[in-house]
Amino acid sequence: MPLAAVIPEPNKPIELREFPAPDLEPNSAVLAVELSEVCGTDVYLQRGLLDGVPYPLIPGHVSVGRLAKIRGEMLDVEGSAFREGDRVTFLDVHRTCNACWYCLVAKATTRCPQRKVYGITYGAIDGLAGGWAEQVYLKPGTRCIRVEAEPESFMSGGCALPTALHAVERGDIAIGDTVLVLGSGPVGLNVIILALMRGALRVICIGAPKQRLDAAVELGAAAVFNFEEHDEAKRLDWLLTHGRLPDVTIEATGHPDAVVQAMRFTRDAGRVVIVGQYTDHGAVSNEAAFNPHLDLNKKHLDVRGCWGSDFSHFYRAAQLVSDPVRSEPWTRLQPKLSRFGLGQANEALSAVASGEVLKALIDPRMGI
Amino acid sequence: MPLAAVIPEPNKPIELREFPAPDLEPNSAVLAVELSEVCGTDVYLQRGLLDGVPYPLIPGHVSVGRLAKIRGEMLDVEGSAFREGDRVTFLDVHRTCNACWYCLVAKATTRCPQRKVYGITYGAIDGLAGGWAEQVYLKPGTRCIRVEAEPESFMSGGCALPTALHAVERGDIAIGDTVLVLGSGPVGLNVIILALMRGALRVICIGAPKQRLDAAVELGAAAVFNFEEHDEAKRLDWLLTHGRLPDVTIEATGHPDAVVQAMRFTRDAGRVVIVGQYTDHGAVSNEAAFNPHLDLNKKHLDVRGCWGSDFSHFYRAAQLVSDPVRSEPWTRLQPKLSRFGLGQANEALSAVASGEVLKALIDPRMGI
Amino acid sequence: MPLAAVIPEPNKPIELREFPAPDLEPNSAVLAVELSEVCGTDVYLQRGLLDGVPYPLIPGHVSVGRLAKIRGEMLDVEGSAFREGDRVTFLDVHRTCNACWYCLVAKATTRCPQRKVYGITYGAIDGLAGGWAEQVYLKPGTRCIRVEAEPESFMSGGCALPTALHAVERGDIAIGDTVLVLGSGPVGLNVIILALMRGALRVICIGAPKQRLDAAVELGAAAVFNFEEHDEAKRLDWLLTHGRLPDVTIEATGHPDAVVQAMRFTRDAGRVVIVGQYTDHGAVSNEAAFNPHLDLNKKHLDVRGCWGSDFSHFYRAAQLVSDPVRSEPWTRLQPKLSRFGLGQANEALSAVASGEVLKALIDPRMGI
Amino acid sequence: MPLAAVIPEPNKPIELREFPAPDLEPNSAVLAVELSEVCGTDVYLQRGLLDGVPYPLIPGHVSVGRLAKIRGEMLDVEGSAFREGDRVTFLDVHRTCNACWYCLVAKATTRCPQRKVYGITYGAIDGLAGGWAEQVYLKPGTRCIRVEAEPESFMSGGCALPTALHAVERGDIAIGDTVLVLGSGPVGLNVIILALMRGALRVICIGAPKQRLDAAVELGAAAVFNFEEHDEAKRLDWLLTHGRLPDVTIEATGHPDAVVQAMRFTRDAGRVVIVGQYTDHGAVSNEAAFNPHLDLNKKHLDVRGCWGSDFSHFYRAAQLVSDPVRSEPWTRLQPKLSRFGLGQANEALSAVASGEVLKALIDPRMGI
Repeated sequence: MPLAAVIPEPNKPIELREFPAPDLEPNSAVLAVELSEVCGTDVYLQRGLLDGVPYPLIPGHVSVGRLAKIRGEMLDVEGSAFREGDRVTFLDVHRTCNACWYCLVAKATTRCPQRKVYGITYGAIDGLAGGWAEQVYLKPGTRCIRVEAEPESFMSGGCALPTALHAVERGDIAIGDTVLVLGSGPVGLNVIILALMRGALRVICIGAPKQRLDAAVELGAAAVFNFEEHDEAKRLDWLLTHGRLPDVTIEATGHPDAVVQAMRFTRDAGRVVIVGQYTDHGAVSNEAAFNPHLDLNKKHLDVRGCWGSDFSHFYRAAQLVSDPVRSEPWTRLQPKLSRFGLGQANEALSAVASGEVLKALIDPRMGI
Repeated sequence: MPLAAVIPEPNKPIELREFPAPDLEPNSAVLAVELSEVCGTDVYLQRGLLDGVPYPLIPGHVSVGRLAKIRGEMLDVEGSAFREGDRVTFLDVHRTCNACWYCLVAKATTRCPQRKVYGITYGAIDGLAGGWAEQVYLKPGTRCIRVEAEPESFMSGGCALPTALHAVERGDIAIGDTVLVLGSGPVGLNVIILALMRGALRVICIGAPKQRLDAAVELGAAAVFNFEEHDEAKRLDWLLTHGRLPDVTIEATGHPDAVVQAMRFTRDAGRVVIVGQYTDHGAVSNEAAFNPHLDLNKKHLDVRGCWGSDFSHFYRAAQLVSDPVRSEPWTRLQPKLSRFGLGQANEALSAVASGEVLKALIDPRMGI
Repeated sequence: MPLAAVIPEPNKPIELREFPAPDLEPNSAVLAVELSEVCGTDVYLQRGLLDGVPYPLIPGHVSVGRLAKIRGEMLDVEGSAFREGDRVTFLDVHRTCNACWYCLVAKATTRCPQRKVYGITYGAIDGLAGGWAEQVYLKPGTRCIRVEAEPESFMSGGCALPTALHAVERGDIAIGDTVLVLGSGPVGLNVIILALMRGALRVICIGAPKQRLDAAVELGAAAVFNFEEHDEAKRLDWLLTHGRLPDVTIEATGHPDAVVQAMRFTRDAGRVVIVGQYTDHGAVSNEAAFNPHLDLNKKHLDVRGCWGSDFSHFYRAAQLVSDPVRSEPWTRLQPKLSRFGLGQANEALSAVASGEVLKALIDPRMGI
Repeated sequence: MPLAAVIPEPNKPIELREFPAPDLEPNSAVLAVELSEVCGTDVYLQRGLLDGVPYPLIPGHVSVGRLAKIRGEMLDVEGSAFREGDRVTFLDVHRTCNACWYCLVAKATTRCPQRKVYGITYGAIDGLAGGWAEQVYLKPGTRCIRVEAEPESFMSGGCALPTALHAVERGDIAIGDTVLVLGSGPVGLNVIILALMRGALRVICIGAPKQRLDAAVELGAAAVFNFEEHDEAKRLDWLLTHGRLPDVTIEATGHPDAVVQAMRFTRDAGRVVIVGQYTDHGAVSNEAAFNPHLDLNKKHLDVRGCWGSDFSHFYRAAQLVSDPVRSEPWTRLQPKLSRFGLGQANEALSAVASGEVLKALIDPRMGI
């Protein structure tokens, strides 16, 4: 009976549970998990800060592993059948319906109301539906993607990679642009990689703590600034020492006030992408004082919310890490990963919450 | 000596002054003003709420009249020379430099730092540089546009027409969209006309007072709602009775909180254009409570500031009102215009400030 | 047993056949056809000019009628269940897979290789899968759309309406543009309606015969020109009498040479949409002499192929014709429709092939 | 008296002439040329294949050097004054008018009818108006750009770099795309560099001769194919061995038939940029047989002509080669440059015409 790590209810420690081996429906499969990850959302999940989560729950939305068992047929996007033994990841979003107004008319599939997310809105009641487990049951309709790389390479990006890819796409970066990244967590670091890959002349980053800013520099950031040591006015001064304000700012912080700062920190007629507000942390503070005349209208800004990822972002992410040349930045991140066994999930969560690790992975192969 | 109405300094009543007849530089002209207008910005100008205004000042940025005198050559965009007697309007923005980074690299000409605006940032010291006057001196490089319509037709749109055209362009309305307009002042009414012209299935409007909402209905709004009688929660309820939230919202109100409401009132993955924040009215209030997670990121919104107009908006505006078919909505607005002589400029300002008139025009031909 | 008109094999006359009443799968329905139509593609179908057609075949891709029988559940895009008796149309494209690279990565669903089209790539072997029949069997997954209008209103647009809507969307028309439409068949006429609805200042049309050009004028075309009476050089002269060449040209002719002319007839840096080449009529002729330097590169043109329609185009089409205001142009087309019973399908085809009718409808309610 | 190389009339050898030192107008300057270049257009110029060229003429449109003398003020886009001694390049296009319909309404400045090009449409009668000279007279309004790199670095890109930048911008390449480049001349090689810089997963190239394809590989092309050795059918086979057809094709060949092949070689719903047809080489051949149904409409392609470059392309080009990291690919090209003195201009032209050199530079410092 496969083991899984379970959040029994909000604010309770994670515990290990055995699950019955899944009973495969037609055109479904079992994934033998090689690696899953711990992302900021998992911290909020454990604290009960997300709506619509059916506790108890196996966390872990983005994972990689090998197809251990296939019933019927699982096809890739080229129409080729997967075989048992293939290494794959899968789009954590399931059941995007392709039948509702949002899917078919607005073509805004990340806002489809039918979508369910493995490890977030699928709970333990749905079976092995999260990645912090020896096995994941890939329900019919789950979209798998071949990964032709070591699991560590893919997980260096993890869920932050498709999220960042979507944000960079929304940022519409031109060759020669200066890009500012607010936040130096996994999404911020992936944005740095991808903004450079998209042709930015210079990418600069305001984040914390120092160790993450060091990683930013290693990944190619031209300059970094520690927000813990400098208030908004000093950050703006620092930006101006680099010339005109940035063309594009991508906010990936989790702090509401950073949204207003992102507008202020961007040059007139530039673009701002908001991808750091996945959890409700309340309203912008009085201190931030959002002034629509000065911060938005007069600046002629484009401010773009960026929610979720779709299949194309996962697919291209898998292509990038599977490519010998393009995967290079993620390879550089690999030594910075911290690996935890299923039995160490609580420690993994704490390490992510404190920011002491750059990225924590769950490796069910490590044993308990 | 031509007469002009002058704001001597902030919060002082307007007074009439005589100006020396302009001494024409090469490739300049004199416009004999037929009509100019009083827009909300003029109210703020008189109250001293705009930065960088060189009082004393002749207000009036958008005007129409006949070329009374031309020295050298004034060409239209087709390369044809204007002749004395031609009816024209002119782009109120002068000296967009076509030489700076904003003009040449960002291609964001409405943010060119060199631009000067007749009636706003040109003062009396610059001569006859505002429309509330018998004559305007059209400096070399001023872009004139032929108007093949009665002056009243063109001024039914006035400066609100190119502003609204820019906003509707930024809104990227698709045939069949539902468009919400916040605000029923001149910009809001022109947005209603143009959103329908652009193919919106339904345009609805939240504004005040009743008389302006009546005008909104007359121009084709499918439904209107008075914000003075209903708080934010009721406005949202009302919107939902019309089905899904609107695809596109265009904010044209002047109230900072309306910016946040514009986001809340728009469907997920929709577009919001902010064109109502031309004057600094301070920060969004605590009551509005801008929540970037709920109001922007999770909604996957596009929020687009819209500053100023460029030549293309003026040119197309003049084409629309000069066309027998397309001008029809503005013709319908004509009887609602209020006309004031140069000597009644203070009354005109009061009437606009109180909202008692839909649009006030200054007609120097009326005598004092 | 429901009757249907069948093309037994290429170049054979249509004959009436009885089909067994469909055996409903779960979540399928039967449509009692009120109206179907005869489009240019049906003429080519009968002549065997399309690839991949499984003769014998019931033609008729776009149809309207009432749901006579539902098994299980058929939902609209809002998630509401259809009821027996509802008037609907349906997206003629079935089985867009939402699983292949074209659907999920390129997001080019009209190029999904899995798609099947009622009345074109579904044959008689698939049952009642074409609209020239008393009933259509709506297989599971068929996307129905409520039509709140008389069937004649919807069919005035017919399949040309969503096709034209897609083309106009691709043309990216701005308010104030001049639009040239090449072709005055059903697609061309719908493009005229929709280009005006999208804000074109003037729409002009080059087509034939006279009766269709008269319809173009009635729908709002500012000027028309008969290509049968004037060669390419004269057409160009005529265009130039209207000022600068058009901003946008939408080609809807069926003649390969018109594609090159569409480029030549458009102003520099304009847009050209090619929507008239749905059947293979061979290569551009030597006479047309496509010169990539003069016709494309130096002109800095955008040339956009436009294939098929997706659900959004059908949905918005149904909204337009269901709206009391927006449906007006199609209402004006209604008296020009020619109606044929199932037993007159051969006559209907001939009338369309010769161009003697503007649009032919098949009305199975007329009896044989 | 400065020396210059002059094409006296079409098909005559280049000869050296002395020019009077320019008499500087206000706000003009003299450039002491360090390097200019020989591009394909110069070959056609010498053969008399371009329209509107005022022979005799000093060729050389893109050049780099030091400002030897400034009269009045020459400002960069940041508003800083250039000083004598500064190293600059300049936008070869002069007098884009910012006053015509193309500049102001269509915003298609590369199609402004007023524009003049140094070394192409300015002739010897206009003075030192081409780069194959010891000095260039930079007329008032000429846009200079600071180059903080060795002249060789900038000229490794030369005029092909801004041209390629514009083409890549038009190609709208997404991270992860496969890009096909047709042509391996200077534009093709720069497209390879820039497509990778913009995030292409793989760039492949069909060109000739072998030495240029070797350079393509060195610059990062994943695969190359020699068109001289393989006909169209074999090229298509080769492309298909690399999987699906490319997402984006950029044509930079000079051969009309390549335009049709570019369409055929691109996947459905992809993008094709035509940037290789700057000279009139006549119509597409019968052999190429452009079939609008198969090659364009059914494929739902976007085909985009790309004419000229604007200031933004030159500016960003100068930034790229001035940046220590981004300039790396051009540094790699440097050893492949061939350098000719002013007295060797005929040899330089022959070497470019035959394709025996990758890129020829004119270095007036070499002496005669």
